[in-house]
Amino acid sequence: MKEIDLRSDTVTRPTKEMLQAIMTANVGDDVYKEDPTVNELEKKLAAMFGKDEALFFPTGSMANQAAIKLHTQPGEQLICDKWAHVYNYEGGGVSFNSGVSCKLVDGDRGMITASQVEESINPPDFYHSPLTTLVCLENTTNKGGGACYDLEDIKEIRKVCNKHGLGLHLDGARLFNAIVKNGEDPKDYGKLFDTISVCLSKGLGTPMGSVLIGDKKLMKNAIRVRKVLGGGMRQIGFMAAAGIYALDNHLDRLAKDHERASEIADVLEDQSYVANVEPVETNIVIFYLKNPKHETNFMDQLAVSNIRISNMGQGKLRIVTHLDYTEEMHKHFIETLNGIEL
Amino acid sequence: MKEIDLRSDTVTRPTKEMLQAIMTANVGDDVYKEDPTVNELEKKLAAMFGKDEALFFPTGSMANQAAIKLHTQPGEQLICDKWAHVYNYEGGGVSFNSGVSCKLVDGDRGMITASQVEESINPPDFYHSPLTTLVCLENTTNKGGGACYDLEDIKEIRKVCNKHGLGLHLDGARLFNAIVKNGEDPKDYGKLFDTISVCLSKGLGTPMGSVLIGDKKLMKNAIRVRKVLGGGMRQIGFMAAAGIYALDNHLDRLAKDHERASEIADVLEDQSYVANVEPVETNIVIFYLKNPKHETNFMDQLAVSNIRISNMGQGKLRIVTHLDYTEEMHKHFIETLNGIEL
Amino acid sequence: MKEIDLRSDTVTRPTKEMLQAIMTANVGDDVYKEDPTVNELEKKLAAMFGKDEALFFPTGSMANQAAIKLHTQPGEQLICDKWAHVYNYEGGGVSFNSGVSCKLVDGDRGMITASQVEESINPPDFYHSPLTTLVCLENTTNKGGGACYDLEDIKEIRKVCNKHGLGLHLDGARLFNAIVKNGEDPKDYGKLFDTISVCLSKGLGTPMGSVLIGDKKLMKNAIRVRKVLGGGMRQIGFMAAAGIYALDNHLDRLAKDHERASEIADVLEDQSYVANVEPVETNIVIFYLKNPKHETNFMDQLAVSNIRISNMGQGKLRIVTHLDYTEEMHKHFIETLNGIEL
Amino acid sequence: MKEIDLRSDTVTRPTKEMLQAIMTANVGDDVYKEDPTVNELEKKLAAMFGKDEALFFPTGSMANQAAIKLHTQPGEQLICDKWAHVYNYEGGGVSFNSGVSCKLVDGDRGMITASQVEESINPPDFYHSPLTTLVCLENTTNKGGGACYDLEDIKEIRKVCNKHGLGLHLDGARLFNAIVKNGEDPKDYGKLFDTISVCLSKGLGTPMGSVLIGDKKLMKNAIRVRKVLGGGMRQIGFMAAAGIYALDNHLDRLAKDHERASEIADVLEDQSYVANVEPVETNIVIFYLKNPKHETNFMDQLAVSNIRISNMGQGKLRIVTHLDYTEEMHKHFIETLNGIEL
Repeated sequence: MKEIDLRSDTVTRPTKEMLQAIMTANVGDDVYKEDPTVNELEKKLAAMFGKDEALFFPTGSMANQAAIKLHTQPGEQLICDKWAHVYNYEGGGVSFNSGVSCKLVDGDRGMITASQVEESINPPDFYHSPLTTLVCLENTTNKGGGACYDLEDIKEIRKVCNKHGLGLHLDGARLFNAIVKNGEDPKDYGKLFDTISVCLSKGLGTPMGSVLIGDKKLMKNAIRVRKVLGGGMRQIGFMAAAGIYALDNHLDRLAKDHERASEIADVLEDQSYVANVEPVETNIVIFYLKNPKHETNFMDQLAVSNIRISNMGQGKLRIVTHLDYTEEMHKHFIETLNGIEL
Repeated sequence: MKEIDLRSDTVTRPTKEMLQAIMTANVGDDVYKEDPTVNELEKKLAAMFGKDEALFFPTGSMANQAAIKLHTQPGEQLICDKWAHVYNYEGGGVSFNSGVSCKLVDGDRGMITASQVEESINPPDFYHSPLTTLVCLENTTNKGGGACYDLEDIKEIRKVCNKHGLGLHLDGARLFNAIVKNGEDPKDYGKLFDTISVCLSKGLGTPMGSVLIGDKKLMKNAIRVRKVLGGGMRQIGFMAAAGIYALDNHLDRLAKDHERASEIADVLEDQSYVANVEPVETNIVIFYLKNPKHETNFMDQLAVSNIRISNMGQGKLRIVTHLDYTEEMHKHFIETLNGIEL
Repeated sequence: MKEIDLRSDTVTRPTKEMLQAIMTANVGDDVYKEDPTVNELEKKLAAMFGKDEALFFPTGSMANQAAIKLHTQPGEQLICDKWAHVYNYEGGGVSFNSGVSCKLVDGDRGMITASQVEESINPPDFYHSPLTTLVCLENTTNKGGGACYDLEDIKEIRKVCNKHGLGLHLDGARLFNAIVKNGEDPKDYGKLFDTISVCLSKGLGTPMGSVLIGDKKLMKNAIRVRKVLGGGMRQIGFMAAAGIYALDNHLDRLAKDHERASEIADVLEDQSYVANVEPVETNIVIFYLKNPKHETNFMDQLAVSNIRISNMGQGKLRIVTHLDYTEEMHKHFIETLNGIEL
Repeated sequence: MKEIDLRSDTVTRPTKEMLQAIMTANVGDDVYKEDPTVNELEKKLAAMFGKDEALFFPTGSMANQAAIKLHTQPGEQLICDKWAHVYNYEGGGVSFNSGVSCKLVDGDRGMITASQVEESINPPDFYHSPLTTLVCLENTTNKGGGACYDLEDIKEIRKVCNKHGLGLHLDGARLFNAIVKNGEDPKDYGKLFDTISVCLSKGLGTPMGSVLIGDKKLMKNAIRVRKVLGGGMRQIGFMAAAGIYALDNHLDRLAKDHERASEIADVLEDQSYVANVEPVETNIVIFYLKNPKHETNFMDQLAVSNIRISNMGQGKLRIVTHLDYTEEMHKHFIETLNGIEL
C-alpha cells in the first residue's frame, strides 16, 4: 500500500479528473487579468459568499497577509486568539508586511468571544497604546483541532466590531469543513465578515492557491497589495481550474473526512496508551499519549506500517484526514492503531 | 499648597540648582557630535555601567525602540512580559519601527524567569514561526508596580540568551530606583545586558532625555538609527547638563521616594475602602478599591485636596512618588487618605 | 488566424509537450520541501549557474524582492538604473518589503557602469545619508529594449562592489535571452553575482514561476523570506515540471525569437511612419512613430489584423517576440506592417 | 576672537535674552499635553500660518518624516527634487519609517515646477507602479543654496495636486528666511500646503526643535506618529520658550544674515581663486574654487584665522550666515577672504 500521510490535508495530489480539468483549462495572462479561468473562479467564489469581489493568491498566508494590510495602517493592532495562524505560522508577517502588532486573546480551542474582543480593544484616545482596528478569526481552527465557531457567536463579535469601528477578517483555510459540517450557507459568512480567505489546497485537494473575498471598497487595493508582495502570476488558470473542479466536486465529500476523523477518535479513546482525545468536529484529531516519552516509539510503529502523523511535542499528536485518505487506508490505519503496544 | 501630582514621576520640574546647571552649560551642535556636555554625559554613563558607548535620545521610547532595531531584522520576534512597556505603551513601535512581533510571557508583576524565556523561543529551523532573537526585560517594572528583579534571576536569563544566541536588552526607565533600593552596582547590569536604556526625566528629575548604553559592536549603528527616527538634536547639551547634575545629586535621594511610597502603602492598608495594596519595592504604589464604582468619588475627594493620582481602571489605582513630592505634601496626602470616606 | 499577441513574452501558453510534462509530474508538498520535481528544478538551476542553492518563487517580482531583503536592512540604499524593473514595476516593493530606497543611475538603455556605481555610493560615515549596501543590475533590460550587458562591464562593477563591500544582485527575468544571444556560460554569471533571479514564464514559456539562485550564506534565510511574503506553495511541482521541460527544450530556440525581432526591426526602419528603431539585441523591439498622435490609428490598424503590441506612450511602442509567435504569424505581421498607412 | 563657524546656521547658541526666557519658562508634562509653554508655541504657530493645529517635535527630520507618514500608506510614492533633504539627508527615513519611495525630479537649484510634478505622477490604474500620493517641496532649498520659490509657482503645483488628489507638504526648515526675504505672509503658505514643518534651531537660533503645522483632519494622528517615532518629550517647554522668544525677536533680523551672505558673495566673485558663485537669495553662499585640488589649502588658510566653512567636495564650498555671526566676525572674514592666496 502507498504511504498513508495524515500529517496534514495539504499533502493531497490531484485526482485524475482534477488533472484533466487542469490540462484542458483555458488560460491567459492573469497579470493583465486576462486569464478566463482565474476570472471564472474569482467570480464563482464572490457569488458563493455574496460578496462583490474575489482575488486568487498563491497561498493562504498571502491572502491573509494581504487582508490584514488592506484593513490596517502600520502601528495599529489586531485582535486574535493566541493560537491564531496569522500570529503563529505566517513567519511574523503581521509585523513584517503590515507593521501591525497582535493582541492575543486566551480563547477556547482557538475560538474567542465577543466580550473577550471588547476587553481587548485599546482606548482609542490613549495614543501610547496601538490603535485597535481589526479582529481576525479562524474557522475551523488549526491549532484548536478543527473546532468550529457557532455562527451566533460570530454575530456577537460582529456587533462589537461595528460598535467600535473595527474590521473583521476570517482566515478560512478550512472554512469549507465548517460549512459542510454545520450545513451552513457561505453567504452567512459573507454577511458577517469584511474579508474572507479560503484555501483550495487543503480539504478541497488542489495543488495550490487561496482566494480572498470581500467588498469593493476594501478589495479595490487588493491587486496592488498582491503585486507588491509578489503574488501576481501569469497563466495560473491551470491551478484555478483545479479550484473550480474542486468547488464543484469535492465540497460534499468533506463529510467523509469528518466521519473518518470521528471514527479514528473513537478508536483512540479505547487505546490504553492514550491519555485524552480532544473533541473532533471536522477533519482534525488531536490526542495525547499517556507517556510523552513513548512518542518516538509510537511514531516508529506507525512508520513500520507506512503511516505518518504529526508530532506536536510533549506527547501531543495530530492526525488530519483528507481526499487522499481512502477507505482501504482507513481500515489499515485503525487496525494498526489497535495493534500498537507501548 | 501647590497641586500634589502623584500620577507619575515624569511630572517633575527642575530644581533651582538643576536650572543653574542648565543655564551655564557649555553647548555645541550634537548632530556634529560637538556638544561637549552631551559628550560628557554619554561618557559618564558608559563608564558608570562599564560599557563602551552611550548615546543621548529625546525619549526613553526612542532609546528602547532604537535598541530593538539594533538587535533585530524585520520578521523576527522578541520575548517580553505581557505588561512590558515596549509592547504596551510605545505606540506599537516594535512592529512599526522594526517589523518585529512580541511573544508575551505571563510573568509575575512584570518580571519573567529564565525557564519562561526558554519555553518561549521558537524552534529556529521551523521557518513558519518568527525567528526569536531578543529578550527585553524591564527593571523596575512599570505596570508591575515598581517591582525589582533579583540579579541572580537575570543571570539565569542571560545564560538562556547565551545558549540560544539571543540579545538581551534592559528597559531601565526606572533602573536607578532598583539600583538604589538594592544597593547594586550599575556595572553588574552592564555585564549582563547587551544594551540598557536609562531615563533621566523620571526619578532623576530632568526635563527630558534618555540614554542608550551598550558595547561598540551593537552601538556602531545607534547614531544612524537615532537619525532615521528623527532623534538627532542640536544644542541639547542644556538638557544633558540637567542629566549630569541629576546623576551627581539626585541618585541617593531616590531612597526617600521609596520610603514615602512604603509609608503611603502602610496607610492605605489600614483604610476600610481599600481591598488590597500590592507589595511596594520602590516608588510606585498600586492598590485596589473594595468597590470599583467608588473610583470617581475617591478621585474627586482627592481633587478637593488638590491631589492627583492615576486611575488604571476597574478599581485599580496608582501613586508614584518623586522629587517634587515634599515632606509637607506627604503629610498632607496621608492626612487626606485617612480622612476619605467612601 | 489566432490573435498575434506581441505585448510581452509573458503571454505564452504551454506547448503540448510541456503540458504532458506537467500532467505526469511527480509532486509532493513543497512547504515541507517534499516535492521531488521542485527540488529537481532547484538543483538543476543551482548547478547550471555554479551556485550552492536555488529556491522556486511564484513570481519574478517576489524572487527579486526576496533577494533585496536578503541583502539589506531597512533604511539602506541600493543602486540601480533609473529604468530598473525593481524600482519601477514591482509596486514600490523595495520600500514596502525592505524599507530600502533606490539611488537611480542615468544609464544607457537600462545598463549602468562601474564608475556610475562608484559615484553613487554614499559615504559610509556620513550617517545623514542612507547606507549603500547593494547594486541591482538587469540583463537583458526590460525598459532598455532587451539590451545586454558586456560581461567585462559587469566584472568592473563586481570590483567596485568588492571594494566597497556591496552585494550584487541580478534581475535575470530575461537572462537566458542574453546567454543565448552571446553564447555565454551561466556559470560566468554565477561567479559575478551574489544572487540571480531567473524567470521561467517569459522566453521559456512556462505558465508561471521564477527561481532565485545564490550561495548558502545568503540563501539560508531565503525560505523564511519566501514564507513571510506568502510564497510557499504546496504541490507546485506541476509548474516546476514545466520549468524543467523548458530548460531542456526551450533555451536554444530563443535564438529564433531574436532573429524575428531583428527582422521586424529591419521592416520598421523602412516604414515612412517610423521615426526611429532602437537597436535590437534580443527579443524586444522598441520604436517611435514620427507623429505620436498617430498612435491610436496605428494600434487600430494592427487590431484589425488581430495583432496587439504595447503602447508605451508619447509615440513609443514595444514589440516582444516569443514561443507562441510562429513563422506564419511572423509573415502576417510583416505584411501588415508594410501595409499600414498613417 | 571666538571661532567663526559658518558651516551651518544650526550651530548657534542662545543669546542671553533667550536663555533668560528658557530659565523662566512655565513648564509641565507635554506627554500629557500639560506644558503651557509648548501649548502656547503650538497655538502661536498654527495661528501665524492660518492652520488648525501645530505640534512640537525634537527635530525637523522627525517633523518631516511624521508628515510623510500622515500623508501616505506603505508602497506609495512621493515626488520631490533630486536634492531634497527628505530624500538625501534624513537617513533613508522615507522608506524606513513610511515604506514609501521617491520619484526624483531634476529641478532648478532644488526647486521643481508644476509640469515636472504632473509628468512624475504614475498612472493610478497601473498597479505595477507605486501609487503617487504626495509632493514634498523645500523652501528655501538647502542643497540649492537657499533659493526661494516664487509663490505663483507653488500655486501651480497646488493646482496639479488638487487635480490628481495629491497631498502637498513643505519642508520649511528655512521657510522664515524666504518669508523675510520676500516680505511674504505665512498665511499664504498655510493656504497652499496641507502640512508645513518649520525649524526653530536654524536661523531663529534656538537650541532645538521643529513644529509641524496642518489642518485637523491630517493632524489628528500626528501625536500618535510622534509617539511611535519616540518624539513625545516631558518638560520640553524650556525649549519651546526659546522658540516663542525667537519668533518674537529673531524673525526680522534674518534680513541681516541675508545682507551679509550677499556681501560675502560679492567679495568671493572678486577673488581670482573662485570659479563661480551661485546666486545668493538668503543666508547660504555656494561657490566653486577654480582648482578643486586647492580645497585643503583654502580650508587650512581659513582655519588659521579660526574660520570654518563646509566643504561639499570637488571644489564646491558652502557658507551659511546666522545669529552668532557678528559684524566684527563679518569684517574679519571678508578681510581673510581677500588675503587668501592659492
